[in-house]
Amino acid sequence: MVIIEGGVTAAKGFKASGIHCGIRKNKEKKDLALICSDTVANAAAVYTKNLVKGAPLTVTKKNIANGKAQAVICNSGNANTCNANGIEIAERMCDITAKALGINAEDVIVASTGVIGQPLDIAPIEAGMGSLVSALGDDSCSAAEAIMTTDTRKKEIAVRFTVDGVECTLGGIAKGSGMIHPDMATMLVFLTTDCAISSAMLEKALKTDVDGTFNMTSVDGDTSTNDMVAIMANGMAGNTEICCEGEALDAFMKALNTVTVWLCRNIAGDGEGATKLLECRVKGGKDLATAKVVAKSVICSSLVKAAMFGADANWGRVLCAIGYSGAEVDVSKVDVSFVSEAGEILVCKDGAGVDFSEEKAKEILLKDEIVIDVTLGDGDAVSTAWGCDLTYDYVKINGDYRT
Amino acid sequence: MVIIEGGVTAAKGFKASGIHCGIRKNKEKKDLALICSDTVANAAAVYTKNLVKGAPLTVTKKNIANGKAQAVICNSGNANTCNANGIEIAERMCDITAKALGINAEDVIVASTGVIGQPLDIAPIEAGMGSLVSALGDDSCSAAEAIMTTDTRKKEIAVRFTVDGVECTLGGIAKGSGMIHPDMATMLVFLTTDCAISSAMLEKALKTDVDGTFNMTSVDGDTSTNDMVAIMANGMAGNTEICCEGEALDAFMKALNTVTVWLCRNIAGDGEGATKLLECRVKGGKDLATAKVVAKSVICSSLVKAAMFGADANWGRVLCAIGYSGAEVDVSKVDVSFVSEAGEILVCKDGAGVDFSEEKAKEILLKDEIVIDVTLGDGDAVSTAWGCDLTYDYVKINGDYRT
Repeated sequence: MVIIEGGVTAAKGFKASGIHCGIRKNKEKKDLALICSDTVANAAAVYTKNLVKGAPLTVTKKNIANGKAQAVICNSGNANTCNANGIEIAERMCDITAKALGINAEDVIVASTGVIGQPLDIAPIEAGMGSLVSALGDDSCSAAEAIMTTDTRKKEIAVRFTVDGVECTLGGIAKGSGMIHPDMATMLVFLTTDCAISSAMLEKALKTDVDGTFNMTSVDGDTSTNDMVAIMANGMAGNTEICCEGEALDAFMKALNTVTVWLCRNIAGDGEGATKLLECRVKGGKDLATAKVVAKSVICSSLVKAAMFGADANWGRVLCAIGYSGAEVDVSKVDVSFVSEAGEILVCKDGAGVDFSEEKAKEILLKDEIVIDVTLGDGDAVSTAWGCDLTYDYVKINGDYRT
Repeated sequence: MVIIEGGVTAAKGFKASGIHCGIRKNKEKKDLALICSDTVANAAAVYTKNLVKGAPLTVTKKNIANGKAQAVICNSGNANTCNANGIEIAERMCDITAKALGINAEDVIVASTGVIGQPLDIAPIEAGMGSLVSALGDDSCSAAEAIMTTDTRKKEIAVRFTVDGVECTLGGIAKGSGMIHPDMATMLVFLTTDCAISSAMLEKALKTDVDGTFNMTSVDGDTSTNDMVAIMANGMAGNTEICCEGEALDAFMKALNTVTVWLCRNIAGDGEGATKLLECRVKGGKDLATAKVVAKSVICSSLVKAAMFGADANWGRVLCAIGYSGAEVDVSKVDVSFVSEAGEILVCKDGAGVDFSEEKAKEILLKDEIVIDVTLGDGDAVSTAWGCDLTYDYVKINGDYRT
């Protein structure tokens, strides 16, 4: 498997585009993205578990109930959530897109991201659709840009892999940044592949993967109302359709996981105001659930996050977060190390502090990617969670988001 | 019932003191507090549910297992937690205190607050005990100061009330500021009363009260390792001992609740870096558990907290936090208003936005105390939670706490 250029247009038969249509006031910022497949594709999606759900999610859920989709339409700048006419607007978005592409409205995945509770005007979307469709091409980058909100960089990746000797491609784009927390923790991820795989296997693969990736990523502990991870598989690679478990599905899942882990790390590292990517690796858990709960608790602790921002080796806060995680852990067996490209340092052994060089710890924690390595000593379950530091800029960005 | 001066020394037969003994480097900051009763008192305490527990909690739990105590010794600057010799040091603190006061070591409540995982040196405590005992008097204020960590102001209050025609007094001191989250959310609260009440009733009253007060207070979502609320009742007011439920217990619980709610509001309003006290009042819950979960979820949301810091009426984040709280709520029935001394404004009705004056909302949200009023429309259960805004200073304080 190799990482290649191209995001959502790397796989055969997919085109994408992104434009500024006028939902956002800032004309420099794109606000409407389109991804489409030459043929109707098998499709699956996973949605936020927030009871307050964006109207686009309801419409998407209905549209891909049959396991099929051909296009994704997504705007930024407005979440189309908690609005009286939300469903109607989301359906209009599908209709307009379908008409412009000459496809069925029921084959459109619709998504919105941005401020909650302000009516979304359909006019700029309607007016911009012609340009959006004309712009369709290999340009995954414009689509990746058009779904960004407070993200500081676009997130796109693709991989090439082999299924039964046939070369397949899988790629994706994501927007993240704020309101990121299990479950789900994305906000929006769109994946495309030319691999032939049944709708049922596609859904299974996506759900399994999301549990260990997007559901283990937290920026700020707030689970969004509009989270969605959607995947389309158009089969144009020409492999025999994956219809059951086995080597072919394993190869597909490995490719999927490579893409999603990369996106998670980039969502976390580009969290609102973040200066560092934090990764909590838990080993020695008595079971997977325990390892996951511990990893998430550490990565979500405001105090751990602020300490990492300050490059302060305050491991007591890591222990504290393990202690209140709700997991059954024998604290007297817990070891904690901090790891980065500058090295590794053990700071806590068997639940108590050990002598360590503060200077060396500082050097390690001043890097951009920090691993908090936790060993529970209770078994062999492992889990990884991703997050970021808590900074002045997080407060700045969220102190006045709407204006 | 009236609020009076005097904190933990307002009730008959209680003395207190606070000094700098040398645990902290800064000589301006007191770091050792003592509270004692003239006679052995009935006592009860509630502790953190964090699995990582400070050594002092273990020792206190053992010492008041018989429902009796006569003194509280508490240091700041070091939590005596996650240290190999923690229990030994905590027991030494009790011994030294008991010897100096001429009481039993088993009647001492011991507590520590500060950094986790650094050995606590007994020497300065031993050396300072003489001065600490000599300083005992009506000075609740020095004790309140000596337990502070990043608190910016001391927290003490007392009330006078009547039980069966006999005048009683109940007072308390608290330290809060960071690592504050249900359950418990304090870090340390010491209460004294001269009311005669059995150990069993005292424990019952305290546990019941804490569920609606300290367990509904969150500064940063991190549950401390050293939280403790302890109360001593020496019976010196001379009322008939409260041994069962009834009017007398009701009067006691009302006094207790007045003191604890005041302390909660002050802990929240003086949360690390806070510029505002936030209060979330939930009405119309289908049951108490639902109302509580919703109130806590709103008050804990980093995004709501940052919006309040910025005086931004971003009510979508309140809805979002209700939606991911885990409570069963019909979002289409939810109303949200913001309230302060500048007025009240409805921003969300039946789960959707309403037109409101942004100018008026700003005026309301610029005040120091903000109420987020949530109506669920599902029943008549109510609950209140307390918290604070998320600010640049929270990040600053916690980015480099240890140095």
